[in-house]
Amino acid sequence: PHTFPALTLLNSLNRRGSFRIVLCRFEYSNASHPISRNADLFPSSPAPLATSEHLIALPFCRWIKFEEKVEQGGERWSKPHVATLSLHSLFELRTCIEKGSIMLDMEATSLPQVVGNPSSGISHAMNKHICKNLVDIGGVLNLAGSSPAMTHRNLTSTSLNDISDKPEKDQLKNKFMKKLPRDAEASNVLVGEVDFLDSPFIAFVRLQQAVMLGALTEVPVPTRFLFILLGPKGKAKSYHEIGRAIATLMSDEVFHDIAYKAKDWQDLIAGIDEFLDEVIVLPPGEWDPAIRIEPPKSLPSSDKRKNMYSGGENLQMNGDTPHDGGHGGGGHGDCEELQRTGRFCGGLIKDIKRKAPFFASDFYDALNIQALSAILFIYLATVTNAITFGGLLGDATENMQGVLESFLGTAVTGAIFCLFAGQPLTILSSTGPVLVFERLLFNFSKDNDFDYLEFRLWIGLWSAFQCLILVATDASFLVKYFTRFTEEGFSSLISFIFIYDAFKKMIKLADYYPINSEFKVDYITRYSCCLCEHGFMEMLFFLQYNTTIDWSSLTKKECLKYGGHLVGNNCGYVPDITLMSFILFFGTYTCSMALKKFKTSRYFPTTARKLISDFAIILSILIFCGIDALVGVDTPKLIVPSEFKPTSPERGWFIPPFGGNPWWVYLAAAIPALLVTILIFMDQQITAVIVNRKEHKLKKGAGYHLDLFWVAILMIICSFMGLPWYVAATVISIAHIDSLKMETETSAPGEQPKFLGVREQRVTGVIVFILTGVSVFMAPILKFIPMPVLYGVFLYMGVASLNGVQFMDRLKLLLMPLKHQPDFIYLRHVPLRRVHLFTFLQVVCLALLWILKSTVAAIIFPVMILALVAVRKAMDYLFSQHDLSFLDDVIPEKDKKKKEDEKKKKKKKGSLDKEKSPTFLERHTSC
Amino acid sequence: PHTFPALTLLNSLNRRGSFRIVLCRFEYSNASHPISRNADLFPSSPAPLATSEHLIALPFCRWIKFEEKVEQGGERWSKPHVATLSLHSLFELRTCIEKGSIMLDMEATSLPQVVGNPSSGISHAMNKHICKNLVDIGGVLNLAGSSPAMTHRNLTSTSLNDISDKPEKDQLKNKFMKKLPRDAEASNVLVGEVDFLDSPFIAFVRLQQAVMLGALTEVPVPTRFLFILLGPKGKAKSYHEIGRAIATLMSDEVFHDIAYKAKDWQDLIAGIDEFLDEVIVLPPGEWDPAIRIEPPKSLPSSDKRKNMYSGGENLQMNGDTPHDGGHGGGGHGDCEELQRTGRFCGGLIKDIKRKAPFFASDFYDALNIQALSAILFIYLATVTNAITFGGLLGDATENMQGVLESFLGTAVTGAIFCLFAGQPLTILSSTGPVLVFERLLFNFSKDNDFDYLEFRLWIGLWSAFQCLILVATDASFLVKYFTRFTEEGFSSLISFIFIYDAFKKMIKLADYYPINSEFKVDYITRYSCCLCEHGFMEMLFFLQYNTTIDWSSLTKKECLKYGGHLVGNNCGYVPDITLMSFILFFGTYTCSMALKKFKTSRYFPTTARKLISDFAIILSILIFCGIDALVGVDTPKLIVPSEFKPTSPERGWFIPPFGGNPWWVYLAAAIPALLVTILIFMDQQITAVIVNRKEHKLKKGAGYHLDLFWVAILMIICSFMGLPWYVAATVISIAHIDSLKMETETSAPGEQPKFLGVREQRVTGVIVFILTGVSVFMAPILKFIPMPVLYGVFLYMGVASLNGVQFMDRLKLLLMPLKHQPDFIYLRHVPLRRVHLFTFLQVVCLALLWILKSTVAAIIFPVMILALVAVRKAMDYLFSQHDLSFLDDVIPEKDKKKKEDEKKKKKKKGSLDKEKSPTFLERHTSC
Repeated sequence: PHTFPALTLLNSLNRRGSFRIVLCRFEYSNASHPISRNADLFPSSPAPLATSEHLIALPFCRWIKFEEKVEQGGERWSKPHVATLSLHSLFELRTCIEKGSIMLDMEATSLPQVVGNPSSGISHAMNKHICKNLVDIGGVLNLAGSSPAMTHRNLTSTSLNDISDKPEKDQLKNKFMKKLPRDAEASNVLVGEVDFLDSPFIAFVRLQQAVMLGALTEVPVPTRFLFILLGPKGKAKSYHEIGRAIATLMSDEVFHDIAYKAKDWQDLIAGIDEFLDEVIVLPPGEWDPAIRIEPPKSLPSSDKRKNMYSGGENLQMNGDTPHDGGHGGGGHGDCEELQRTGRFCGGLIKDIKRKAPFFASDFYDALNIQALSAILFIYLATVTNAITFGGLLGDATENMQGVLESFLGTAVTGAIFCLFAGQPLTILSSTGPVLVFERLLFNFSKDNDFDYLEFRLWIGLWSAFQCLILVATDASFLVKYFTRFTEEGFSSLISFIFIYDAFKKMIKLADYYPINSEFKVDYITRYSCCLCEHGFMEMLFFLQYNTTIDWSSLTKKECLKYGGHLVGNNCGYVPDITLMSFILFFGTYTCSMALKKFKTSRYFPTTARKLISDFAIILSILIFCGIDALVGVDTPKLIVPSEFKPTSPERGWFIPPFGGNPWWVYLAAAIPALLVTILIFMDQQITAVIVNRKEHKLKKGAGYHLDLFWVAILMIICSFMGLPWYVAATVISIAHIDSLKMETETSAPGEQPKFLGVREQRVTGVIVFILTGVSVFMAPILKFIPMPVLYGVFLYMGVASLNGVQFMDRLKLLLMPLKHQPDFIYLRHVPLRRVHLFTFLQVVCLALLWILKSTVAAIIFPVMILALVAVRKAMDYLFSQHDLSFLDDVIPEKDKKKKEDEKKKKKKKGSLDKEKSPTFLERHTSC
Repeated sequence: PHTFPALTLLNSLNRRGSFRIVLCRFEYSNASHPISRNADLFPSSPAPLATSEHLIALPFCRWIKFEEKVEQGGERWSKPHVATLSLHSLFELRTCIEKGSIMLDMEATSLPQVVGNPSSGISHAMNKHICKNLVDIGGVLNLAGSSPAMTHRNLTSTSLNDISDKPEKDQLKNKFMKKLPRDAEASNVLVGEVDFLDSPFIAFVRLQQAVMLGALTEVPVPTRFLFILLGPKGKAKSYHEIGRAIATLMSDEVFHDIAYKAKDWQDLIAGIDEFLDEVIVLPPGEWDPAIRIEPPKSLPSSDKRKNMYSGGENLQMNGDTPHDGGHGGGGHGDCEELQRTGRFCGGLIKDIKRKAPFFASDFYDALNIQALSAILFIYLATVTNAITFGGLLGDATENMQGVLESFLGTAVTGAIFCLFAGQPLTILSSTGPVLVFERLLFNFSKDNDFDYLEFRLWIGLWSAFQCLILVATDASFLVKYFTRFTEEGFSSLISFIFIYDAFKKMIKLADYYPINSEFKVDYITRYSCCLCEHGFMEMLFFLQYNTTIDWSSLTKKECLKYGGHLVGNNCGYVPDITLMSFILFFGTYTCSMALKKFKTSRYFPTTARKLISDFAIILSILIFCGIDALVGVDTPKLIVPSEFKPTSPERGWFIPPFGGNPWWVYLAAAIPALLVTILIFMDQQITAVIVNRKEHKLKKGAGYHLDLFWVAILMIICSFMGLPWYVAATVISIAHIDSLKMETETSAPGEQPKFLGVREQRVTGVIVFILTGVSVFMAPILKFIPMPVLYGVFLYMGVASLNGVQFMDRLKLLLMPLKHQPDFIYLRHVPLRRVHLFTFLQVVCLALLWILKSTVAAIIFPVMILALVAVRKAMDYLFSQHDLSFLDDVIPEKDKKKKEDEKKKKKKKGSLDKEKSPTFLERHTSC
C-alpha cells in the first residue's frame, strides 16, 4: 500500500470579496482495488502502515478556480485545467444530496465532533467504524508533506484530535498559501470505499464557524464545508467522479453562494439544477475526455447567473446570438477629456484639475525595475533620433541648427514636457514635417536675405500664440473626430516610415562603404591598393609651407585636403564594414524580437522571463555591441558632440528678436506660422489620441489641452534659443508605453495574466531627457555603440508599433484563405468583401499619403490627416453604419466580445428569488 | 427580409465505410423576430420575395464532423468547431422524440410526399399550411448559391416538385463535395416558428431510400433523415438549440448508427440516453460558451462506444484512470523483421520475400512532386558530404582515395543499395569511424611498407565475408536490444556532431579568410597592399626559362610558386568573404527553418504552403545563392572534380589482389577486418533501427538482413575498386524520411491532418545517387553554390533531426518550471526527479562518447554503442520497470495515450443489444 500527500482543493472564485471558500478534496479506497497494483511500482515508498494497511489513496485533486490533480506516478500537481465531468456523476451527486444527511450550520470544532454529531444519523457502531476510517485518512494525511513529495512520519500517535490541531509547520511553509485570498475557507471532500458498509454513507456538512482541521488541508485554511461519501467496495471510480462533481460545484461561484445560504437540501438541489441548466455539453464524438482543457483567456462574469436564472432558452452556445449591430462606443465621443466646456481655458483648467491629484503618484509609481528598462531603451531611441534629425537639420540649415542644438532642444523640451504635461507618457521629438518646414524656411530666408533665426523666432512666437488660442478655446475637442481609421492609418504610416528609414539608412551606409565584388583572393597581388599621389597642389603646398610632404604617410582625408589624388583600384572600396553592419542590423532586430517574445516561452521561471522580456532591447544592444567589439571591424559608431557650444560659430544661445529683418516681417511671420500651427496641432494631437487609446487602459486620464499648452510654451523657449521645435513622436511614444505595460500576477492557478494598464508616471520620461542632456559627457561610452545596432532598434520599434493594429490584421486577412482566418469579431458580422474593401480604401489613402510625404508637399502632410477624416466621413455613404461600427471604432476585440456577451446575458429573465420553479428533473420528466 | 443560402450539414463519421450520412440543417423563423432588423444592413440583397415575405432565416449550420455555422453578418462559413450544446436543449430534444411523430422507413421520393404522408398524423388543413411553409423554405433554398454568397433567381416557378429535382448546377459546382465521402447521405433539420400553430409540430423521418431533395442540400447528396420542428412564435432560439442538438446527435457516430437501425422511438431515446451518458460536461464557471472550441488533434475512436455501453462509472474524465503500468510494446522485441529464424539465411530469405511484392510499387509510389524536392535536397546533402569526406580522405591517404573516389563510391554504392536493399530510405555515406580507420590503416601501411590499397582490399574482403556470416546467421536480431535510450542517444550524438561540424567548418573558413580588424577607413592610404617581390628563386627561374618575369602581374599562387614573397600588411587578410559566409550560413539555416514551418502558418492556401514547406531547403539554397551572386563577394564555392580519373596517378580503377604484400598479410587482414565488421554492423544497424522506427509508420517492412547483405557486397566492390566503404548515414537518412512524409488531406472540415507514413520507394535514392555520379558533368552549375550555404543546410539537418526526440524534450524539461511543462505521458506517471535522473545519465553517456569521438579512440566509437546497451541494462537496477516502460520505449507519445484510452474503453461492459436497461431519466429519477 502506498500513501499520497494530503491535497487541498481551493476556491477563490468570489470576486466580490464577501467570502471565499477553499476546497479540499481527499479520496481513499480499499487496497483490494485494482489500483493497488501500482504499489509495487514505488519501491521507494515507506513500509506498509500498520494502522491503515487496507487503505490506499486514489488520485487527489484541488480546485481554486480550475482543477489540479496529483499525477499518480508523477507525484506532482498537474497543470490547472477545466474540470470535465460526466453527466452521470452530476446526476448521481444530485441523488446523493437528496438521499444523504445534509447538516447545515453544524456546531463543531473538530472532525470527531462532526462525525460524532447525532444529527448525522449514523448508528453508534457505524459511527465507530467511520471514525476509525477517518482516523486512517488522518493518518495518511499526516504523512503528507506540503508538496506532493512524501514525508515519512510515525503514525502511532495519530488520532482525530491530532487532525484538528494547530496548523502544522509544513502547512505554514507552503508557498501555495500565497495564491489564496486572505478570507479563504476550505471545503473538504472525502470519498472512498470501505468493506463494512452495504449502502453508501453520504454527508454534506456546513459548519457554523469555519474551523481549522489541521493537516486535513494542504495549507492552514479554515474548513467550512465537508462532503463525506463512503460506500461499499467496487464503485470507487464512481465515488471519485461524484467527489469531483461536488468539488467542481463548490468551486462554482453561483453554487457556493447557494451553499452558504441554503436552508435545506432543496436549496442545494436547486443550486445543482441551476448549475445543470448552465452547463456546457460537448458531444462525445467531437471531443476526447482525456484532453485537459486549458483554462480560457477570459471568463464570463457569473454575476448575471447569480441573480437571474430561468429554465429554458437562455443558453446561446457558440455565440450565435442574433446580434443587433456593433454600435460599440465608437471613438472618443464619450470621453470626458474631450468635452467642450465653452468657457475660456475651460479644458485647460479641467486638465490641470484632473491631473493635479496624480502628481505625487506620478513619481512613486515609477518605483519598478521595469522603469529602468524603459529609461535605457527610450534614452537610446531618443539619442539616436536626436543625432539623426540633428544631422539632417544641420544639412538643411547650414549648421544654424545642428546636432548639439538637437540634443539640447530634445533634453530641455522633453524634460519640461514630461514633468508638467497632461500625458507624460508622450515623448517629444523632431518630426519629418518640421524638418521639411525648416529646410524651406532656410532657403526662403537665404534667397530673400532674411535673418533666418530671427524670422524663425517670430514664426515660432506667432505659432505658439495661435496654439495658445487653440488651448484657450478648447479646440482639442476636435480630436474626437479622429476615428480608428484615421488613427491607425496615421500610426501605421509613421511605422512604415520608421521601417523604411531604417532600411534607407542601411542602404546609405552600404553606399558609403562599398563592397569590392571584383575582389578575388588569389589576385590580391594584382590588385593595387590605394596610394596618395601628389598633383598640382603639391607645388602650392610647397610654396605655402616651404616644406615637402611625405605623401605616402598621409591619410585619405589629408591626401585629399592637400590636393593629392588617390591612385589604385582599392580606393573606392571598404572591406567588411557593410556586411558587418547588416549582420548587426538584422541581428539586433531579430534578437530584440526573440527576447521580447521570450515572455511567452516555457523556459525559466516567470520572473526571469519577464525581466528578460522587459530588457529585451537593451540586452540585444549590449549583445551586438559585444559582437561588434569582438569582430573589431570599424563600423560607424554613435558619435555625440562632446563640447557644449552652438554648432555654428555665427550664432549664440539667445536669438535677439529685433534687428535682423525689416519690421513687416514680424507681422508677415503670422502667415507661415499658421501652417506650423496646423502642423504642430495635428502631429501632437493624433499622437496624443494614440497614446490615450482605450486599449492602454490609462487610469490617470489624458490632458489634450494641457499637452498643447506646454508644446506652445516650449515652442517659445526653443524659438528664442534657436533650438528645433518639438512635438509628440508616435512610434517612440508607443515604444515607451509598450515598455511600461503591467500585467496581473496570476492569482488562482490556471488564470491568465490580465493586462492591467501602463505604469503612468513622469519619472521615466524626465530621466530619459536628463540623460539626453548629459549625453555630451557620455560620449566616451556611447561611442562603442555601432549605428547599425541602433538602426536595428528603429526597425524593431517600427515593426512593434504595428502590433495589434486592426489595420494590419485586416491586411493579413488578404493573404489568408477563408478557413484559416482568425475569429475576429468583425468577421462574424461584416461580409469579407466589405472588410477587404475597407482595407483597400485605407491602403489607397496611405499610399497617397506616402507619395505626398516623399515629395516637397511633405509640409502639408499633417494637414492631409484632415483629409483622412474627410475620407472616413465619405465612407458613411459607401458602408452601412453596422459595418463601420465593427470596422472602425476604438474598442478592441476583447471588449467587444465581452459587451456582446453582456448583452446576451442581460436578455435572460427570471431570478433565483422568484417562486420556486420546477426542478431540473421535474421539468424534464413531467413533459 | 433577407435570405440565406441553403446549407448542408454533413456527417462522414463512419470510419468502417458501411454507410455515411450527411446532415443538412436549415432553420427559419418569422420575420417579426428581432433578427429581421439585420435586413437593412444588406443593401445588396435582392428585393423582398413575394412568396416568402414573412420568412426569414436564422443562422444556418452544417456538420460533417464538427459544427460550422454561417456568420450572420459575415456571410461566410465559420471555422469548424466542437458543437457546445446546452443540457436543456438535449433534454428538450429527448421530449421532442418522445412526443413527436417518428416515421421510420417512410417510402417517399420527394418532400411533398414526406409531408403529405398520412402517418405523419397531421390534419389536412394543417398539412396545407406546413406544405406552404416548406414551399417557402424551398424558395429560400433555391435562392441559395453554392457558397454563402447570394444568388438571384426568380421564385415564381418554385414548388415542392422543384425541390425534389435533379441536382442543380450550383450544387454540382460546389467544391465542398470533395470533402464528402462517396456514399454520404444527408440529414436535413428544418426548424422554425410559424404563426398558425399553437403547439409544436415535430417529425423525425427516416426514408426507406435516400432521396435527392434537390436544392435542399447544399451539395447533391441524397437525404436519408429529416427532422422538422415547427412551433408557435416566440421560442425560436429554443427551437434553434434543439435543432443544433439533433444535428450534433446525427453527426455522432454511435447515434447515427442507432438512428439507422432504430425500430421505434424507444430506440432513439435509448440512443439519446447513451449519448447523454457519454457527454462531456464543462462547468459554466470555468468556461465561456461563446468560445468556439477548436477541434482536437485526435479523437477517441467511437468503436468501443458503439458495441458496449452501460450505465454508470465508465467515464473517466481528464484521463485520471489508475494506470497499470506502461509496458507499451517496448522496443522491437515484437517486430516480425527481427525474429530469429534459426535457419541458414532464414532472415535474408524472409526479407527478400517480404520486400519482393513491393518492388514494383517502390517505383510508381514515387510519382509525386514531393519526390522532386527530396531528390534535390538529398542530392545536395550527399554531394556536399562526398566532397567533405573525400577531401578528408585525400588528406588521410595522400590522395590514394580522394574526392573523385568519394564521388564514384557514393554514386555506385548508393544507387545499388537503394535499388536492391531492404530499406531503400536509408542513405549510404562515408562516416567518421571509417575515416579514422582509413587514416590509421594508411599510416600503418606506410610505416610497415605495405601496399595500402591491397592491404585494404583484403581487409574489405574479410570484413565483407564476416558480414555475410552475420547475415547468414540472422545476427541482426540483436538489434532488438537497442532501446529508445540507445537509439536516441546515438542519433542525438550524430546530430550534435553534425551541428558541431557545421560550425567548425565555418570557423575554419573564418580562419582561412581572416578579417582585418585593424582596418580604418581613413588610413586606407597608409595601409600598403600586397605586392609580389622577387627573391632568390628569380635567379633560378631566369636560368631555367631564360626569361624574366613581370612580378607585379603574378597572382598570389604564382608568386609563391616562383619563389617570390608577399610584401605588405594586406596580404594576410581577406575582406568580406568571412562575413558574407556567415550571413549565408545563418541565412540559409534560418530561411530553411522558417519555410519548413510555413506549413503551419495561416497564410496562403494549403497546397501552396505544403509546396513551400516541401521545397523549403531547395528554396533557401536558391535564395542564398542568389544573394551571394548579387553581392558578388568571392565566397568559397562547391567545386566538384570535372575529370573522371583516379585522384592519385599511382593507382587505377582496379586493385590487384596479389603481389603487393607478403602472403601472410592476406590472412592477418582478418584481424583488423573484425574491427571493421563491428564498426559496419553497428553503424549500419542502428541507423536502420532509427529509419524503421514505428513513428515513421513504414508499411513495406524493414530488411535488416538484406541491408547488411548489400553493404557487404558493396564493400567487396569498393575494396576492389579502391573506393571508400559506405554505411548508412543517420542524419541524411532522417532528412530523407522527413522530406517524404505524407499527411492526410483533411476530409471533414476541422479534422486535423494525420501523419500517414512515408513515401516508401526506391526512386528518390536511386536518382540522388545517379545525379551524384553525373555531378562531374554538372560542375559548371554547381560552382555557383557557396559552401557556407551548404554548411547552413547541414546545420539545418542536424537541428531538424533532433526534432521529436524524447531525449531532447527531457533536456528542455530541465529548463522549464513545473507549471509550464508540457503534458507528456511520462510526466503523468514518472516522478520528475526520476525523469531528470534518467536524462542526466543519458547526458553523461553522450558526453563520454563525445570525448571518445574527439580522440584517436574514435575508431572504437561504434563498439561503444554496445556500451550504451549495457548502461541501459544497468538502469534496470536503478529504475523501476514501470518508470522505464514510460521513459524508454519506442512508442511515441500519442500512440501511448491512445493505448491508455483503449484500455480504458475496454473496461466498459454491457452492450446495446442486451436486455433494455433503464433509460437515463429512469435511472436518475427512480433512486
